[in-house]
Amino acid sequence: MSANVSQSDTSTPPDFDGLLRRLSGRIPAHCILTRSEDTRPYECDGLSLYRQAPPVVILPEDEAQIIEVVQACRAFNIPIVPRGAGTGLSGGAMPHPRGVLLGVSKLNRILQVNPESATAVVEPGVRNLAISEAAAAVGLYYAPDPSSQIACSIGGNIAENSGGVHCLKYGLTIHNVLRVRVVTMDGDVVEFGSEAPDSPGLDLLAAFIGSEGMLGIVTQATVKLIPVPRCARVIMASFPTVEAAGDAVANVIATGIVPAGLEMMDKRATHMVEPFVNAGYDLDAEAILLCESDGTPEEVEDEIQRMNAVFAAAGASRLQVSATEEERERFWAGRKNAFPAAGRVSPDYYCMDGTIPRRHLARVLKAIADMEIEYGLRCANVFHAGDGNLHPLILFDANIPEEVERAEKFGAAILELCVEVGGTVTGEHGVGIEKINQMCVQFSRQELDFFLSLKKGFDPQGLLNPEKVIPTLARCAEYGRMHVHAGELRFPDIPRF
Amino acid sequence: MSANVSQSDTSTPPDFDGLLRRLSGRIPAHCILTRSEDTRPYECDGLSLYRQAPPVVILPEDEAQIIEVVQACRAFNIPIVPRGAGTGLSGGAMPHPRGVLLGVSKLNRILQVNPESATAVVEPGVRNLAISEAAAAVGLYYAPDPSSQIACSIGGNIAENSGGVHCLKYGLTIHNVLRVRVVTMDGDVVEFGSEAPDSPGLDLLAAFIGSEGMLGIVTQATVKLIPVPRCARVIMASFPTVEAAGDAVANVIATGIVPAGLEMMDKRATHMVEPFVNAGYDLDAEAILLCESDGTPEEVEDEIQRMNAVFAAAGASRLQVSATEEERERFWAGRKNAFPAAGRVSPDYYCMDGTIPRRHLARVLKAIADMEIEYGLRCANVFHAGDGNLHPLILFDANIPEEVERAEKFGAAILELCVEVGGTVTGEHGVGIEKINQMCVQFSRQELDFFLSLKKGFDPQGLLNPEKVIPTLARCAEYGRMHVHAGELRFPDIPRF
Repeated sequence: MSANVSQSDTSTPPDFDGLLRRLSGRIPAHCILTRSEDTRPYECDGLSLYRQAPPVVILPEDEAQIIEVVQACRAFNIPIVPRGAGTGLSGGAMPHPRGVLLGVSKLNRILQVNPESATAVVEPGVRNLAISEAAAAVGLYYAPDPSSQIACSIGGNIAENSGGVHCLKYGLTIHNVLRVRVVTMDGDVVEFGSEAPDSPGLDLLAAFIGSEGMLGIVTQATVKLIPVPRCARVIMASFPTVEAAGDAVANVIATGIVPAGLEMMDKRATHMVEPFVNAGYDLDAEAILLCESDGTPEEVEDEIQRMNAVFAAAGASRLQVSATEEERERFWAGRKNAFPAAGRVSPDYYCMDGTIPRRHLARVLKAIADMEIEYGLRCANVFHAGDGNLHPLILFDANIPEEVERAEKFGAAILELCVEVGGTVTGEHGVGIEKINQMCVQFSRQELDFFLSLKKGFDPQGLLNPEKVIPTLARCAEYGRMHVHAGELRFPDIPRF
Repeated sequence: MSANVSQSDTSTPPDFDGLLRRLSGRIPAHCILTRSEDTRPYECDGLSLYRQAPPVVILPEDEAQIIEVVQACRAFNIPIVPRGAGTGLSGGAMPHPRGVLLGVSKLNRILQVNPESATAVVEPGVRNLAISEAAAAVGLYYAPDPSSQIACSIGGNIAENSGGVHCLKYGLTIHNVLRVRVVTMDGDVVEFGSEAPDSPGLDLLAAFIGSEGMLGIVTQATVKLIPVPRCARVIMASFPTVEAAGDAVANVIATGIVPAGLEMMDKRATHMVEPFVNAGYDLDAEAILLCESDGTPEEVEDEIQRMNAVFAAAGASRLQVSATEEERERFWAGRKNAFPAAGRVSPDYYCMDGTIPRRHLARVLKAIADMEIEYGLRCANVFHAGDGNLHPLILFDANIPEEVERAEKFGAAILELCVEVGGTVTGEHGVGIEKINQMCVQFSRQELDFFLSLKKGFDPQGLLNPEKVIPTLARCAEYGRMHVHAGELRFPDIPRF
């Protein structure tokens, strides 16, 4: 299966020769890749279902070089797809067939760790975990922790507004990035956000974070650091039904406790993971919860006690609290290795990412079980239960084209169910190319037009990461979910991005 | 002194007769005020320096009526200024001389308090404190607490992204509002945000919150509720110099503790307040800090001990911890009554609102003291020290026009100093008409153009709260702080809002 994005303006071929002539002497030759053996590694990001070889890959070494590339691409009307570490799961960094892939991996310096203001200033290519490693010396860390945190970069985290196991308590990227420095498609440098709690004017930092490279290219970010907790313990709670586990999640949140992490795995997921990780999971349970508390030892003691009481009242069949840091890490290791474990039991898997209001957890899980029969594919459920952020793993074989098709339909049906119960089509993985059709379901045309009005202000030519995130009118009409207002299409002359 | 906003398109007078004819039968007659004795109370908001009698005031009773008003105003090309409770301090709700003032005070129902999801759904006219009062029955409250919380409404809080004493720990309005339902200038109803932690597409909720009525009119908001803390205590710490108090603030934050509140008052402020409130402040100190801890009793005990140690090390001359809830409230009463106290010692006062990085506290306070001499006016300093959010109170006499002018210049100089040291021209009071000139200092033209591109998408005719928040090119040029890029004005044909 290849990319299903439409290709705009294919009438005139892009003048890559002209572009490279202009950049010659301005960008070091070793930063420009054009031979297919060099560009091949960039043909996809973490969503390997979709691949597109990039005609040109440019890996600038500093902000000045990024400005050169942007200005040259603008002059030659050539699209740019920005890329961090390439670990994204929605195809946001999939190359454009007529564009330049612009990787920021060489901008990888930690410019400052400031314990007084509890902030760090970093370049976009810095790995997520590297920030925490650098801050550890002063007892601080950067809270958002995507499963890919060893590899993924802060630039990519900003593009996708990444989350992680601890984002229930500590927030997503948007809650932990204070300021970004950005090169716009004009080649100008602007900043959004500030170290102050509020900014005057319209808050475009939040619109920028999660904009998947459509508005500009980050060259620096100021992130918030928080103190490493003095203590952390995790409860593993077993439940005889998925419904009981779902209710237990809602009840914990209703007590007012905000767990540092609150994850759920169903029986298919624990059976998939246990032989691989030996986490010590209860294989008889229909669902298990992992629920963490962190803080001072007294606070943790108090929260663990109260959470255990809630789980017992919700019908937990077994409760186990990590006694040592090693045991706590083992409990989490199973959860964090669920994706690789899926790769062991199935030739391929498709990781979905949707959110729902917590109160609908049991209903949605039941519906997914029904869909397994409808689509004839197995699905393991692993997710950030506290947030209502689902990660169903659909298991399939990519060598059977008809199975691929069923997997895609299964995934689309899950996402549309998420919207139906009042949730959203992405929790933390972004829209990219993967969910662009579902955006037609999620948003009205007017809401999409508000996105476009901002996009147009930043990038009137539509050169930054085109054909991603915001669906065109034509696409929504084709997908058959077009929102029509009062019997007519209201903005028929929407620019195509 | 009257409003200094420019009046656009004064050539054709607005057809208010036509507008009222159209609304007749669609909006109850008692909801429309046109006689000057009825409209007079709406001539200003909390920034009484600027006044403008509104030609027409409309107070709709529900969303359907708001849609009627918006559609009628659009048809007649008449501006709309939305208004909450009118407690704003930057003139955001000051009427437009050619427009309708649209008050949302009658949409004042609390539609839902949901303990399971810890959320409430409220209409825009609901008072800030009324939300917490309604949630108290289930042990929850709404955290942001502007000093005006008895009177101000959630609609106005959303427009201004209001803060309060506790926002250091619990965040501003933006961090506590999950979803808004909005009537756009098209008369359509759209929603921004969701109960899920992330939304796909561009996050326009954050851009909407704090947009001061420029993008749409809120008809419903879903807010986050948090548990009422089991315990709270406050330290009153005295310091022999303002610098020592400033350093103590930075040092507390550097320990990693996030106090529930961290406020500073200088000697002029304590002397102004004490005779009025009898809070028990140390009148010998050059500055005092009020620093609160909340949480479980053990957590509070631990934090108070650690914060006391930091203050002692920073040279505190006296430390007193509230022993009872009554004493805690008395310590805060002085801080919360600083503005009325200023009204007792001076005929008028001008409350500024800027933020600075905490490390520049001492430097900025020293500069303000120098400005007192330069402008020949007294200034008391009361502020959210933990956030670096200053509220200098400039004391003057409005009956002396020349003093008014000096007060305005003094205020502008403080705000520009805030920008100079890396801060912003508003912490929590918004831009409104008050700080529109300073926006030319804070932002480059390109950044302002990004704001305009979004504004244009929502309101192409520029009818919603015109001439506020985003300065025109002409205004910035006139103010003499125009950002010129590469020797030329880059977007000469900017629409005027």
